[in-house]
Amino acid sequence: MRMSKGVEWALHTLINLDVIGGGPMHSGRLAEAHGLSPSYLTKQLQQLAQAGLVSSVSGPHGGFRLARALEDITLLDVVEAIEGDVKAFHCTEIRCEGKIGALSPPPTRTCAVHAAMRRAEDAWRQALAAQTLAGIRADLNVTPAAARLVRKALD
Amino acid sequence: MRMSKGVEWALHTLINLDVIGGGPMHSGRLAEAHGLSPSYLTKQLQQLAQAGLVSSVSGPHGGFRLARALEDITLLDVVEAIEGDVKAFHCTEIRCEGKIGALSPPPTRTCAVHAAMRRAEDAWRQALAAQTLAGIRADLNVTPAAARLVRKALD
Repeated sequence: MRMSKGVEWALHTLINLDVIGGGPMHSGRLAEAHGLSPSYLTKQLQQLAQAGLVSSVSGPHGGFRLARALEDITLLDVVEAIEGDVKAFHCTEIRCEGKIGALSPPPTRTCAVHAAMRRAEDAWRQALAAQTLAGIRADLNVTPAAARLVRKALD
Repeated sequence: MRMSKGVEWALHTLINLDVIGGGPMHSGRLAEAHGLSPSYLTKQLQQLAQAGLVSSVSGPHGGFRLARALEDITLLDVVEAIEGDVKAFHCTEIRCEGKIGALSPPPTRTCAVHAAMRRAEDAWRQALAAQTLAGIRADLNVTPAAARLVRKALD
């Protein structure tokens, strides 16, 4: 049970875009920020664009830019953009199979096991939705001097 | 990001063991309950045994039996027994790599991105730990007559 590494990449890249002033910045330079594979990061950026978190700007000074302020991007937005959904438990309805399944007609209610696992994942989703990238950037405590160094390093 | 199907198998099997009176029951018959692969279910049962949730009884009438009451088994116990841990986000410390990583000495604090993702997973773990299999069995509403039918079907 493991999220793709693209979630970590996307989160840092969105915060880096904010630190450099929002972009646009070419995906190759965004990849150099953390020594990432440019082709794989471009795939993540395209998924973020599909989710409306970044937008693509064409031209020689183009690239990707933030489409929303970090205050308006939650961890859930990013995880869903990259992973599709936040869902680890997948019910395959084994309750309807085998000797026990044969005892009753197909059930009409959601399985209690499935419902309980879903309640737990709802708590996870709510905790992801309650945290914005602005809050994480604040925790990172990027000083104006450090932000200037980052902009220069990626220039 | 997906838990193994063994989690669903283990949850239903533990509840079935309770419905039939606690066991012991041979893993092959527990597998027949839901038309599961006996060899794969045996692997899950061995993991549940290692976690102290079931115990193995040898002999012709042996098999696996509940080692604890359902009141004392939480969803978290079962997920950890099968999955090892409840952890979807894995930090690979990309913040220390590339051009941005080169700007500062190795950090001493946990990355704010990692800490935020961990807070969300803590909420998931807490919600798993707050639900027992006894509660789920109650939601399944297995009547004494239905329990007799299950025992007979697996006999």
